[in-house]
Amino acid sequence: MQDFIGELKKITREYQLLSESSAILSWDQETCLPSNAQAERGEQLALLQSLAHKKLTSAKVGELLAACGCSDDAPWGDRDRSSIDAVFLRELYRAYTRQIRIPSSLVEAFARETSAAQAAWADAREKNDFSHFKPHLEKVLSLVVEKAQAVGYEEHPYDALLDEYEPWMTTSEVSRVFSGLESSLRDLASRIAERPQVDDAFLHQSFSLEKQREFARSMVTDLGFDFRRGRIDETAHPFTTTLGARDVRITGRFREDFFSTGLFGLIHETGHALYEQGFDDEILGNILATGTSLGIHESQSRTWENMLGRSRAFWEHALPMAREYFPSQFGDVRLDQFYRGINKVSPTNIRIDADEVTYGLHIILRFRLELAMVAGDMKVEDLPGAWREVSRDLLGTEPQTSAEGELQDIHWSMGAFGYFPTYALGNLYGAQFWHAFEKAAGNTDTIIRNGNFAVVRNWFRNSIHRYGASKTAGELCRDVSGEALKADYLQGYLENKYRGIYGF
Amino acid sequence: MQDFIGELKKITREYQLLSESSAILSWDQETCLPSNAQAERGEQLALLQSLAHKKLTSAKVGELLAACGCSDDAPWGDRDRSSIDAVFLRELYRAYTRQIRIPSSLVEAFARETSAAQAAWADAREKNDFSHFKPHLEKVLSLVVEKAQAVGYEEHPYDALLDEYEPWMTTSEVSRVFSGLESSLRDLASRIAERPQVDDAFLHQSFSLEKQREFARSMVTDLGFDFRRGRIDETAHPFTTTLGARDVRITGRFREDFFSTGLFGLIHETGHALYEQGFDDEILGNILATGTSLGIHESQSRTWENMLGRSRAFWEHALPMAREYFPSQFGDVRLDQFYRGINKVSPTNIRIDADEVTYGLHIILRFRLELAMVAGDMKVEDLPGAWREVSRDLLGTEPQTSAEGELQDIHWSMGAFGYFPTYALGNLYGAQFWHAFEKAAGNTDTIIRNGNFAVVRNWFRNSIHRYGASKTAGELCRDVSGEALKADYLQGYLENKYRGIYGF
Repeated sequence: MQDFIGELKKITREYQLLSESSAILSWDQETCLPSNAQAERGEQLALLQSLAHKKLTSAKVGELLAACGCSDDAPWGDRDRSSIDAVFLRELYRAYTRQIRIPSSLVEAFARETSAAQAAWADAREKNDFSHFKPHLEKVLSLVVEKAQAVGYEEHPYDALLDEYEPWMTTSEVSRVFSGLESSLRDLASRIAERPQVDDAFLHQSFSLEKQREFARSMVTDLGFDFRRGRIDETAHPFTTTLGARDVRITGRFREDFFSTGLFGLIHETGHALYEQGFDDEILGNILATGTSLGIHESQSRTWENMLGRSRAFWEHALPMAREYFPSQFGDVRLDQFYRGINKVSPTNIRIDADEVTYGLHIILRFRLELAMVAGDMKVEDLPGAWREVSRDLLGTEPQTSAEGELQDIHWSMGAFGYFPTYALGNLYGAQFWHAFEKAAGNTDTIIRNGNFAVVRNWFRNSIHRYGASKTAGELCRDVSGEALKADYLQGYLENKYRGIYGF
Repeated sequence: MQDFIGELKKITREYQLLSESSAILSWDQETCLPSNAQAERGEQLALLQSLAHKKLTSAKVGELLAACGCSDDAPWGDRDRSSIDAVFLRELYRAYTRQIRIPSSLVEAFARETSAAQAAWADAREKNDFSHFKPHLEKVLSLVVEKAQAVGYEEHPYDALLDEYEPWMTTSEVSRVFSGLESSLRDLASRIAERPQVDDAFLHQSFSLEKQREFARSMVTDLGFDFRRGRIDETAHPFTTTLGARDVRITGRFREDFFSTGLFGLIHETGHALYEQGFDDEILGNILATGTSLGIHESQSRTWENMLGRSRAFWEHALPMAREYFPSQFGDVRLDQFYRGINKVSPTNIRIDADEVTYGLHIILRFRLELAMVAGDMKVEDLPGAWREVSRDLLGTEPQTSAEGELQDIHWSMGAFGYFPTYALGNLYGAQFWHAFEKAAGNTDTIIRNGNFAVVRNWFRNSIHRYGASKTAGELCRDVSGEALKADYLQGYLENKYRGIYGF
C-alpha cells in the first residue's frame, strides 16, 4: 500500500517551508527593511505566498486526501480518530477544502482590492475623511460576501468568515457568549465609573528607553521566553511571528512617557510566544505546529499580560526589581498603589488603549457592525453614524472624528471581517483556563509571588501549548475546563479583581 | 510575433525574486537567527534555491532562448548586439547553458559533500589536523573536476571553474597577468623588508566599540552609502548582500584592540555596496542588475578601502574627525605617522590579515596549488607540504600549523575552486580603473582632501557601476582604461605609494 499520508506530509512540509520563508520576509519588512525597498518586498512576498498557496491546493493534495478516505463527513479519513495522523488529515482537509472553494480570480481580486483599500484607509485616517475610504470598503465588503458564499456556510455567511480565524466557531455561539458578556461588562463599567478614580500618574513620568528595554528583557526571560528559539526586536506595531519550528520572534515598542506600553506589550507578546515555543516535538515542522485558533492564541497573550502580569502577586515579586531600574520613578510607589495604577479603568474611544473591563465592549461594537454589513442589514455609508450610536450606547463615549471612530482599525481595509471577535474570545478562553489553572495549582498567588513561573508555564504547556492545532479550540476548552466556552469565568474574574481595586 | 523576450523576462523576474528571497534568509541567518533555528534554516534555503534553479533551467527557458535565436555562436540571439535586450539574452544564455550542463545528480552530490566538507573543515581547523579534512577535500575535488568536465572548456578544466566567478576570463590570461605581478610584488616586498619598519602602535590601543560604530557610520555616510536603499549590521564575517533592487546590506565587525579592522572593513564593504546601489534604473530588477564579475566587484571594494581609504589625502580630510571621536588615542598622532601606520607592510601567514603588497602573493600561492590539484598534477595529500614550500618561496614565511596554512580559508571546503584569483584581479582592475580616474579627474588629491566623494562616486558610477552585468569585465576594462587588464597599473601604484612610505 502506498504511503499516501507520507506523501501529504512531504508536500505540506514544502508548503510550510514556503510559508515560513514568507514570514521571514514579513518580519524583515517590519523590522529592518530600508525605506525604498518596500515596493519590491511586496513582489517577493506575493510570489512566495502564491507558491505556498499552489502547493497546498494542488490537485495532487486533493487526490491524496481522497485516497486517505477524507470527506466532509469524515475529514480525518480512514484513520483511528485518536491518532495524530487523523488530526493531521482533518486539519489539512479543512485548509484544503476552504482554499479550493475560493476561485483564483476571487483570490486575485481580493489581494488587489485590499491592497488599494489599505492605502486608502491610511490616507483617509490621516485626513480624517471616511468618504475617501467608503468606496474601497464597499468593494472589499462585496468581495468578503462573495468569499463567504464561495466557502459556504450553514446558518450565516459570517460563519464562513469567522472560520478563517476561529475554526469550528459559529456566529450563533459568539452571539450567545457575547450577549451574556455585554450586560455584565456594562454593569461593571458603570459601577466603576461611580467610584473615585485610581491614580496612575507615576506611570506617566520619563522612563529611559534603555532601562525599559533591559527591565522588560529580564522580565520576559524570567517568564520563560527561550532566546535559543527566538529573539526580541522593536517595531511600531508589536507582534509575534514564527519563522521556523525553533524560531519564534516577538517585537515591542517603548514609550518614554508611559511605562505600561513597553512592558505589558512585551509580556503580551511573550504569552503568544510561549504558545508557539511550547509545541510538542511530535508536531514540530508539521501543519499542526500552529495556534489552533486566534482566540486560543489571544487567550495566552492575555493570560500572561493580565491574569498574571497585572496581578498583585506578580508585582509583589517584580516591584522591588522595577524600583532598582527606576528608583526615582518607583522608589516611593507602594505595592497597592502600583497594582491599582496598572489596572486603571477609564473609557476611551480607542480599542488598543482600552482596559480589561471595557475592551470587550469595543469588540462587541465591531462585531455588531460587521455582522450587519455582511448580512446586508447595514450599508457602508451608514457606518459612521452607526459607529457613534453604538459607541454611545455600549461605552458611553462617542468619537468626535472618523479617525477615532470607524477609521481607527486596519482590519476591514484588509478584508479581515470575522477577526475582531477572536480578541474577546481570547479574554473569555483566558479566564476559563486561568480558573482551571487556579483550581489545579491551588496556591496560585504563592507560586506567582515567589516567581515560580515555570509552574505556570508548564501547566499551560501541558494543557494547551503542546497540542498546537491537534486539538480544536472547543476540544481544548472542554478538556481543560470541563465545559464549553461561557462568559461566567471572565465575568467572575473581572468582578472579583475590580471590586478589590475600586472598592464597591 | 510572440513576445519571447517578454516571456523570458517574466520567468527570470521570478527567478530573481526567489534568489533575493533566499538572500534575505541567508542575511538573517548571519545576522539574527536564534541558535536552535540553524538546521531548519538550511531546509528553507535549500527549497528556495532549488525552486530558483528549476525556474532558470526549465525547458521553457531553453525553448524561448532558441526562439530568440540564441546559440553558442550567437548568445545574444537575433537582436542588435548593441541593444540591452541582446545583452540580456547573452547573460541569460550563459547562465542557462552553464546550469543545464551540470546534471542534477551532480548538483545534489555537490551540495551534500560540500556541506559535510565545511563542517569537517571547521572541525579540522579547530583541531589543527589536516588529516581530518583530507578525505572530504578529495571528494570535493573530484566533484569539482567532474563539474568542470560537465560544463566544458577549451584549454584547461580550470577555465570552467573560473567562469563561475569571473565570466569570460581564462586560466591562461590569469597566469599571464599573475606572472608579471608576482615578480614585481616579490621585489617590492623584499625592498620594503630592508627598510626600517613603520610604527603602528597607535592603532593597537583600546577603542570603544560604540565610538567606532558611530565614526565608521559617519564615514560611510560621507562616502555615499545610501541608507534609504540599504543598512549596516554586525556579523563575525563581514559581507555585502543584495536583497532587492533597492536593498543592499553590508555588515562589519569591530575589534576593541585594533582600529583598522572595523573602519577599513566597513569602507571595503561600502565599495561593494556602492557598486550594487549604482546600477541604472534601466536594468534594476533584471538579471543584469548584478556585479559583472567577482573581480570587478572586488575592484570596487579595494578602490574605496585602499586607493581612497588608505590614501594620505583621505586622512587629511578624516583625521581631524577621527581625533574628535578618539582624542586620547589619536590626539597626538601626526598625519604622516597615521598614514604610514595604516599602510604598514609586514609578512603574515594569514591572507585576510595581509597588507596591499603581499596580498597578491597569498592569492598566487592558492592559484598555483588549486590549479595543480584540478589538473591532477598534485594530490590532496601533498597539499600541506606544497603549501609550506610555496609559502616560503613567495612570502618568505612558513606556517607552523595547518590551521595557519592550508586550513585557513573556507573556500575549498565549499568547492569554490577558481574563486581566489578574483581577489587579486580585483586589485589589478582597481588600480587600472583608479589610474583612469586620476587621468580624468586631474586633481584627485584635492578632491579627496576636500571630501568631495561625490565626484569619485559619480565617476565610478558612470564608468562602471551603472552597467551592472551589461558589460563584461573585459569590455569594462577596455572601455574605461583603453586597454586589456595588465599588471603595470597595480605595480606602478604600489611602487609609488610604498616608495614614499618606506623611503627607498
